[in-house]
Amino acid sequence: MKNSFIIKGDICYSEGPNHLVTHTDGYVVCVDGISKGIYTDVPHAYQDLEVMDCTGQVIMPGLVDLHVHAPQYHFRGLGMDLELLDWLNTYTFPHEARYSDEAYARADYTHFVEELAKSATTRAVIFATLHVPGTIILMDYLEQTGLITYVGKVNMDRNGIPELEEQDAETSAKATVDWLEAIAGKYENTLPIITPRFIPSCTDELMDKLSKIRRDYDLPVQSHLSENPSEVAWVKDLVPSSRCYGDAYAMFDLFGNDAKTVMAHCVWSDAEEQALIKDRGVFIAHCPDSNTNLASGIAPLRQFLSDGQKIGLGSDVAGGSCLNMFQHMVEAIQSSKLRWRLVDDTLSPIGVEEAIYLATLGGGEFFGQVGSFKDGYEFDAIVIDDEEFRTDDLSLHQRVERIVYCADASHLTHKFVKGKQLF
Amino acid sequence: MKNSFIIKGDICYSEGPNHLVTHTDGYVVCVDGISKGIYTDVPHAYQDLEVMDCTGQVIMPGLVDLHVHAPQYHFRGLGMDLELLDWLNTYTFPHEARYSDEAYARADYTHFVEELAKSATTRAVIFATLHVPGTIILMDYLEQTGLITYVGKVNMDRNGIPELEEQDAETSAKATVDWLEAIAGKYENTLPIITPRFIPSCTDELMDKLSKIRRDYDLPVQSHLSENPSEVAWVKDLVPSSRCYGDAYAMFDLFGNDAKTVMAHCVWSDAEEQALIKDRGVFIAHCPDSNTNLASGIAPLRQFLSDGQKIGLGSDVAGGSCLNMFQHMVEAIQSSKLRWRLVDDTLSPIGVEEAIYLATLGGGEFFGQVGSFKDGYEFDAIVIDDEEFRTDDLSLHQRVERIVYCADASHLTHKFVKGKQLF
Repeated sequence: MKNSFIIKGDICYSEGPNHLVTHTDGYVVCVDGISKGIYTDVPHAYQDLEVMDCTGQVIMPGLVDLHVHAPQYHFRGLGMDLELLDWLNTYTFPHEARYSDEAYARADYTHFVEELAKSATTRAVIFATLHVPGTIILMDYLEQTGLITYVGKVNMDRNGIPELEEQDAETSAKATVDWLEAIAGKYENTLPIITPRFIPSCTDELMDKLSKIRRDYDLPVQSHLSENPSEVAWVKDLVPSSRCYGDAYAMFDLFGNDAKTVMAHCVWSDAEEQALIKDRGVFIAHCPDSNTNLASGIAPLRQFLSDGQKIGLGSDVAGGSCLNMFQHMVEAIQSSKLRWRLVDDTLSPIGVEEAIYLATLGGGEFFGQVGSFKDGYEFDAIVIDDEEFRTDDLSLHQRVERIVYCADASHLTHKFVKGKQLF
Repeated sequence: MKNSFIIKGDICYSEGPNHLVTHTDGYVVCVDGISKGIYTDVPHAYQDLEVMDCTGQVIMPGLVDLHVHAPQYHFRGLGMDLELLDWLNTYTFPHEARYSDEAYARADYTHFVEELAKSATTRAVIFATLHVPGTIILMDYLEQTGLITYVGKVNMDRNGIPELEEQDAETSAKATVDWLEAIAGKYENTLPIITPRFIPSCTDELMDKLSKIRRDYDLPVQSHLSENPSEVAWVKDLVPSSRCYGDAYAMFDLFGNDAKTVMAHCVWSDAEEQALIKDRGVFIAHCPDSNTNLASGIAPLRQFLSDGQKIGLGSDVAGGSCLNMFQHMVEAIQSSKLRWRLVDDTLSPIGVEEAIYLATLGGGEFFGQVGSFKDGYEFDAIVIDDEEFRTDDLSLHQRVERIVYCADASHLTHKFVKGKQLF
């Protein structure tokens, strides 16, 4: 059977936000790319499968990055001195304009894709730019990695800069259809997603057209929501009839329900917006590193978890400065502590188990049954050599805790996506 | 001349909080361990010195860690689920008690010292434990590295745990004198510092004795100040006559003036305490990673800088999870942004120039003329190969900015302390 095997090692995975399973020296079974669960000994039914011996190493589900901008990888860790709207105009838009040049896109996306492939991330939801050829180049590269991703050609027909804005709604919609037709049937693992940049970038007319395209092609949606107070106020001006920022998407049926949707940030979502997110089953991409770097604020993560929101983590490069999802788990924990201390002590900080849940099972659900070794889940896995920071007196749970705080791509020895070994 | 040479490369250093000098393809001159400044060409007077060619690499002053607990390196990245006082009792004190065993101290301090030697840190102010032999083992190891450090045998005669508390003030004071006598004249680069753990750990009688020892041996002082609200309230109970927490040190002449002093944290220092810190020239070790991990809060960093406080950065391992001072610069920037957004928008966030200042010149002043390539400064330097994350379109300032966000020990190619090459 293709993509069927067993890995032996120290296993860790989430069964829920507060349920982290750790199993020292166990076996995790993959059949046809699907997890068959973990065992103390090789079960009789699987005795013919090859066993990959990773004894002493930690095996956990691959990490999920629910929100990342591929072209922005170029300027990660730079220009962290502005808030969102100025940051977009000063750094982001001028840079993204360069991807109109296919040679530039080809050269630059190489770095992003190589780094993502080496990282602990197995699934990602990705913004490209508004350029169709550049977006296809990115998708071609991603398909070669074996990662499973959603990639969006960005739509923006207002409030860009002259070099980065589509002429009108019609042009933007047509480019989107052209893109979708050009890639139809082309990829196994690289899937298109409708990507209005955010409400300030898209006229009502464009939103209407995107909604129709989304239905016609049965696609999911990604965008940004309630990241920064100035942005939220601006949306209220731009779409006065909306009850909240989220409603400005919902008015066009681009906010959950039939349209599987992930919205990045939700830092300033009020009770009404949170209820809309929940009712419509919209995924939240919590991006703590970005929300800190752009001084946006801290989303009420404990509230989201208590309410049973669908939620995962996003690196949001280049608002976030790195692709390492372990670091983003730490930032999620850290910012929840500061919010508890400084803003609202009724919302307790999250712990490391919850951070792992967010980066695996929580975000994984956007891709289906993904992010766990529970029986029936698609088999994404990373194997981590923690020798560098392991000491003899640590439990497996403690080793995993330290991995979250200390590990990066350099500590990975193997990576699997849906049962396929990438390295 | 010993320790005299020139390094060629892309040079960056602070001349003040808001003055970052960058000089592409220049020469920095070291004579007898002292910087003679930077030049576009090799000056005539130094033409006989050997030139180390680091063209294309970034040369900057070594980083200063003003507050770190050597024994806590063992459990970095673990047990981040409690606030300060519970964290001390649950994780820290039981672990530090193990250093009564010299074999354990020998084995465990090896890891800390090796990691510190490999890191970008050239100077550090370090807590050991209360144990004299263990502290001497740590100092022996540090002396072998070439790093320049202050190391303190910790004093604690109350509110510890049975395994980690000195019998009484007399015992603690005697152990301190024994330690100082044992190491007298033993080291060139490893200096003792008086180290009352914090007010809750030290009786008035012990503080009195430590003050006398400090005067007798003319030593500096390190301790903790106003880290956590519960701790601050406790100190008020323990020393009711003190006007503020800082005053509980000042009452015993262990708070600046003649006694060069560094106090970690100062998160909750009020205006009166801040004035006392300033008046007495006490150094603040700002420890943003720790203050986040232990949910202590965010110190008013902008206020400290505006007021001209003496201030640097501390990793505060294991409240902080790593020794990498670049990461602590990022955390200083990040937490200043969240404080601006969530607590007080009159105190603007700090930028990358100020973060570099804090980790070099700001903290370096505790060691004298340290932390800059200005003429006359002791020559501490690190050379960084940023090839991994460099792109052609970056200015040197931008390369340095990205180094702060992305670099760690693995990117260092050379390290010098007071003109001596460590690697």
